[in-house]
Amino acid sequence: MPQPNALPLAPHPDRLLPSEPSRRAVARRLLAHVADLPLVSPHGHIDAGILARDEAFPDPAALLVTPDHYVTRMLYSAGVPLDRLGVRNPDADPREIWRLLCAHWHLFRGTPSRLWLESELHDLFGVREQPSAGNADALYDRITAALAEPELRPRALYHRFNLEVLATTDNPWDDLADHRALADDPSWKGRVAPTFRPDGVTDPERPDIAANLRLLAEASGIDTADYAGYLAALRDRRRHFLAHGASCTDHGVEAAGTAPLEASAAAEIYGKAYRGEPVTAAEGEAFRAHMLFESARMSVEDGLVMQLHPGVRRNHHRAVFEEFGPDTGCDIPVATEYTRALQPLLNAFGREPGFTFVVFTVDETSFSREIAPLAGHYPAMKVGAPWWFLDAPEAILRWRAAVTETAGFYNTAGFVDDTRAFCSIAARHDVARRLDCAYLSGLVAEHRLSEEEAAQTAADLAHTLPKQVFRV
Amino acid sequence: MPQPNALPLAPHPDRLLPSEPSRRAVARRLLAHVADLPLVSPHGHIDAGILARDEAFPDPAALLVTPDHYVTRMLYSAGVPLDRLGVRNPDADPREIWRLLCAHWHLFRGTPSRLWLESELHDLFGVREQPSAGNADALYDRITAALAEPELRPRALYHRFNLEVLATTDNPWDDLADHRALADDPSWKGRVAPTFRPDGVTDPERPDIAANLRLLAEASGIDTADYAGYLAALRDRRRHFLAHGASCTDHGVEAAGTAPLEASAAAEIYGKAYRGEPVTAAEGEAFRAHMLFESARMSVEDGLVMQLHPGVRRNHHRAVFEEFGPDTGCDIPVATEYTRALQPLLNAFGREPGFTFVVFTVDETSFSREIAPLAGHYPAMKVGAPWWFLDAPEAILRWRAAVTETAGFYNTAGFVDDTRAFCSIAARHDVARRLDCAYLSGLVAEHRLSEEEAAQTAADLAHTLPKQVFRV
Amino acid sequence: MPQPNALPLAPHPDRLLPSEPSRRAVARRLLAHVADLPLVSPHGHIDAGILARDEAFPDPAALLVTPDHYVTRMLYSAGVPLDRLGVRNPDADPREIWRLLCAHWHLFRGTPSRLWLESELHDLFGVREQPSAGNADALYDRITAALAEPELRPRALYHRFNLEVLATTDNPWDDLADHRALADDPSWKGRVAPTFRPDGVTDPERPDIAANLRLLAEASGIDTADYAGYLAALRDRRRHFLAHGASCTDHGVEAAGTAPLEASAAAEIYGKAYRGEPVTAAEGEAFRAHMLFESARMSVEDGLVMQLHPGVRRNHHRAVFEEFGPDTGCDIPVATEYTRALQPLLNAFGREPGFTFVVFTVDETSFSREIAPLAGHYPAMKVGAPWWFLDAPEAILRWRAAVTETAGFYNTAGFVDDTRAFCSIAARHDVARRLDCAYLSGLVAEHRLSEEEAAQTAADLAHTLPKQVFRV
Repeated sequence: MPQPNALPLAPHPDRLLPSEPSRRAVARRLLAHVADLPLVSPHGHIDAGILARDEAFPDPAALLVTPDHYVTRMLYSAGVPLDRLGVRNPDADPREIWRLLCAHWHLFRGTPSRLWLESELHDLFGVREQPSAGNADALYDRITAALAEPELRPRALYHRFNLEVLATTDNPWDDLADHRALADDPSWKGRVAPTFRPDGVTDPERPDIAANLRLLAEASGIDTADYAGYLAALRDRRRHFLAHGASCTDHGVEAAGTAPLEASAAAEIYGKAYRGEPVTAAEGEAFRAHMLFESARMSVEDGLVMQLHPGVRRNHHRAVFEEFGPDTGCDIPVATEYTRALQPLLNAFGREPGFTFVVFTVDETSFSREIAPLAGHYPAMKVGAPWWFLDAPEAILRWRAAVTETAGFYNTAGFVDDTRAFCSIAARHDVARRLDCAYLSGLVAEHRLSEEEAAQTAADLAHTLPKQVFRV
Repeated sequence: MPQPNALPLAPHPDRLLPSEPSRRAVARRLLAHVADLPLVSPHGHIDAGILARDEAFPDPAALLVTPDHYVTRMLYSAGVPLDRLGVRNPDADPREIWRLLCAHWHLFRGTPSRLWLESELHDLFGVREQPSAGNADALYDRITAALAEPELRPRALYHRFNLEVLATTDNPWDDLADHRALADDPSWKGRVAPTFRPDGVTDPERPDIAANLRLLAEASGIDTADYAGYLAALRDRRRHFLAHGASCTDHGVEAAGTAPLEASAAAEIYGKAYRGEPVTAAEGEAFRAHMLFESARMSVEDGLVMQLHPGVRRNHHRAVFEEFGPDTGCDIPVATEYTRALQPLLNAFGREPGFTFVVFTVDETSFSREIAPLAGHYPAMKVGAPWWFLDAPEAILRWRAAVTETAGFYNTAGFVDDTRAFCSIAARHDVARRLDCAYLSGLVAEHRLSEEEAAQTAADLAHTLPKQVFRV
Repeated sequence: MPQPNALPLAPHPDRLLPSEPSRRAVARRLLAHVADLPLVSPHGHIDAGILARDEAFPDPAALLVTPDHYVTRMLYSAGVPLDRLGVRNPDADPREIWRLLCAHWHLFRGTPSRLWLESELHDLFGVREQPSAGNADALYDRITAALAEPELRPRALYHRFNLEVLATTDNPWDDLADHRALADDPSWKGRVAPTFRPDGVTDPERPDIAANLRLLAEASGIDTADYAGYLAALRDRRRHFLAHGASCTDHGVEAAGTAPLEASAAAEIYGKAYRGEPVTAAEGEAFRAHMLFESARMSVEDGLVMQLHPGVRRNHHRAVFEEFGPDTGCDIPVATEYTRALQPLLNAFGREPGFTFVVFTVDETSFSREIAPLAGHYPAMKVGAPWWFLDAPEAILRWRAAVTETAGFYNTAGFVDDTRAFCSIAARHDVARRLDCAYLSGLVAEHRLSEEEAAQTAADLAHTLPKQVFRV
């Protein structure tokens, strides 16, 4: 399939708004109402060091291709080897990597990566042509030149994106030095908050669990040789995160089970993990579920908002994982049960004052069947935004349609970009706001909601709710 | 989130019809064709005594808030305690309850409760402003005054709603005195039919099972101490219901299994239930499945249409259940399997002449995968309308889109309102008719069906099919 | 429900295109771009003998009703006995069968059968009225007369449909005599390719497995008494199919498991099957999974594209199966897991150069959750078109919306008609092209894709991709 040369790249001001004229007119007005609100990014994977150091981004491949597994997995699926894309291969020529993206630009038709990349190329780098084999070198040179300019440094982009707060994701043993450096820097006017993600010390089946538990002990100064010390060390590190501005935890697991164990049973599995002994799959699952329950208990105590991201089978392609490591695009969702799995946690803590529990999923079958009904009852629970494979236009609209009728808008948590690609933050929030306005325009055009209420709702979804739910 | 004061409340004549002008024009004509057809309500939870006594409704809270778990669960999810809403709390001040609804009116944006309440407030009580903290007292006074008028008595509303028949849901031991009183009352021109719902005597895990089996014995005059007597008593009570105008049974279970047991195995589990002895979860599930099979057999014998409502985990939040009882909004759906589960029942009775088996679900993933293919084959089986969390605009349209292509329109059963809120009956049927017309208008506008056929189909869905399928 | 007489039958040139004018205009232009491209039919169930013999079709019932289980199951679901429709009943009067279809024409409103039949009746037989009880005989006579004309012979229709290639589905022991006869016939200008479908010799639970293994031995001339001979015979027959123009295999299973067995374990189960001994359900499932793995290995060796069609519970209604045989409309889908099930096969072969693995499903919940993410990573895997119950307008649009955002267009495989009804081939491809244009028109109208790219994509989906993926 040859691809056209030099088609124009010009993001339309009405992109993603419904084509039906009466809906589009409403959606445009709603969008105008929210487009300039500051961005709240309460969940993502940006390295705080990028802002602490504020160095220029090196080149187009390192910025837009190699670290973005949405991009590398699509190219890989078409037969492009990951090492040629620079994954775990510092010798790959950035210009060659960029050419591979441009030559395969047609693969991204109809995907959100296309939308995000178009916005970035257009708005940040002044690109006015769709990438193609024919213009790859010219675009590479243009972007490389632009990256040398001060207005494309990370801190400049932070302000250009109108970010109000940006959360990172961090290990319990992280010292948060970059966060502290930013907080101590009088020239830095933004806000970067860490997020406490304890997966590295709560999964006894991880190969690095024993090593991580030593890191936890070291960071907390508390001996983690026994289970009581482990819990104390976790509480200590949560306080450390709170002191550095954290407002949330995050938990990634394959199954959503939350049943607590007897302390002695938990201690026994914990002991094996600490000593580097193998645990059975059943023990692993039981301990992870137990630690979700315990994490909720700690959140009730200390007020950190608890985020749950279940349902992904990590590193599905073992050969790719072994050669290229995690987060290279071969994590695949599995069907995930919530109603029974979350019952222990929700029964224990679901109406605790001050507890907030945000549940995400990549199994969209659970939206109307389980997640919206649960969030439509338990005061603590909120519906997380469409995540990962679902942070795309059609999926986001399906999500709103699936959850709103049962849980309303005000049991949802607002958009999270969850990105590893700094430059895509503004584009992702722009897409999300457009889609919320598109959804609301349907309610207005079908006379289910007044435009005044829709406008207020759009602003609440874009700004009020994420600030309130994630306490940022 | 503050909420606006005094936005107008004016249900638009075209509400819920598609905004695209060519579709809207078709949908309007289809709606005009069906809007005045009588309402058939073959499944719901209205107390027949309301019509037998025909007393004025007491106050706005008792009418519109406290008994409607769609409303109370949403308010609860936002942190409003259930006792403040009058649930299991006769001391709650109705005006305070009403104020809580009005102050949280924004929670219902985009939900069906909002649509139903808007219609009721506008059409029955002449309300012309959206409820808000500012106008709560004024609305309370207006509605209270209106409730004293004779045209808002239950019987007057029955006729004003243009109801042709209304079915209630009743326990096997109910004497149906209210139904008999209505039938014997020459001044009553309507029709209220009971529905035989044997869940109270078919689930050996219920805490009240032994007591209920005594009630069954008493009502039937047949000793239920052994399994044969139990079956005989059930058959007797079905005849009692038939004699009082019943045409249907209804069955609510968590799993849809229908595998029959050997009589001796069934008798053994039954004996434990009768003696108040605990049964295992496996015994409970096996007996419930067996009794679905036996109920189908009885329907083949006596012609009662069999309705199945599976897939809901009841009383998910134990603390709320213990404090406030069942039906307070904490029942949550679970994924439900139909293909294998219904095979025994359908293989045995699925082509029995005169047997009708209507299957509902709150797991919409089964619509295109299991329920429509089953109903598109077995003569006895019909697809029940979207139920509970799915009786909402987007969900109803998804349902039609998911089942029609495989099962057609004529294997579906027509709308059931399933409501506990008497005043919402007309509003719910109005919403359903609008959505069927909206769906059909898409087929017409995309030239998949002629408008003449669409109009005939709309009338069949609104009136012909429910009368025919439920034999009312 | 009486049905109208003599409504006009006139397929609209814009049928299935979106009604919103700006989208329709785009969709029309896209459709004009692809409407005349040749048809590629890489998967179906037409008998090659129909084209080899090129005899006139006998009558309207034998052509349009009896062999089409989409049609017979719908009529059966409304209470029409299958024998009255000619299923396993050569004594049924074709005219009476035809009358039954016409009298129940309303059942097909909103179904794809209606669309296909309308196109066939209009385009091939000049019918200008919707079938009804009133015109059944007149239509019967018109169609019967038309069938005698040479332009309605199979070969004439093949060219009239603008078919470029048509694949059949064949047992491993088939001699492919009809395919050879066609290839050797200098007057035949088309192309009919066989497809290797080994289900008859890979499922040890089939009652005919032992007999089939003898047929395999006979066809290959290789003793299949032991497992090594069995594998050798399969490889031999694959070579036979390749020599007769095959490019694909096809595999129908209930579960999608692909875990390989140790050779000794496989040989043990195989031995039981060969000797006609019963195997357990677990052995059956393990052997089928093993043979999917082995089939993938063979495809890596010989280049045959591997198609997988899992998730259907065959012959759900035992009584109908026993009286009328398989493929009579009582196969029902079940929920199907792919992420874990396909992992062994994809880990072993998912990045083998030259291996192509096309996965279909009738469980649409897996599209966004499992199938698109898998195909969006593994180079070998492609997403098969919506199949069986899902080859319908709404379902096809849901499919595109569910898979495109994760897998793009270029990890999909193009439409397959999968039909047993020769006359429906052109109508089915026409519907598919219209829907792809409808989907793409939405991307254009919402400014997510330029019309130039949409046009190129439409042509790739209609023609380039199926030729490339299925290597026809």
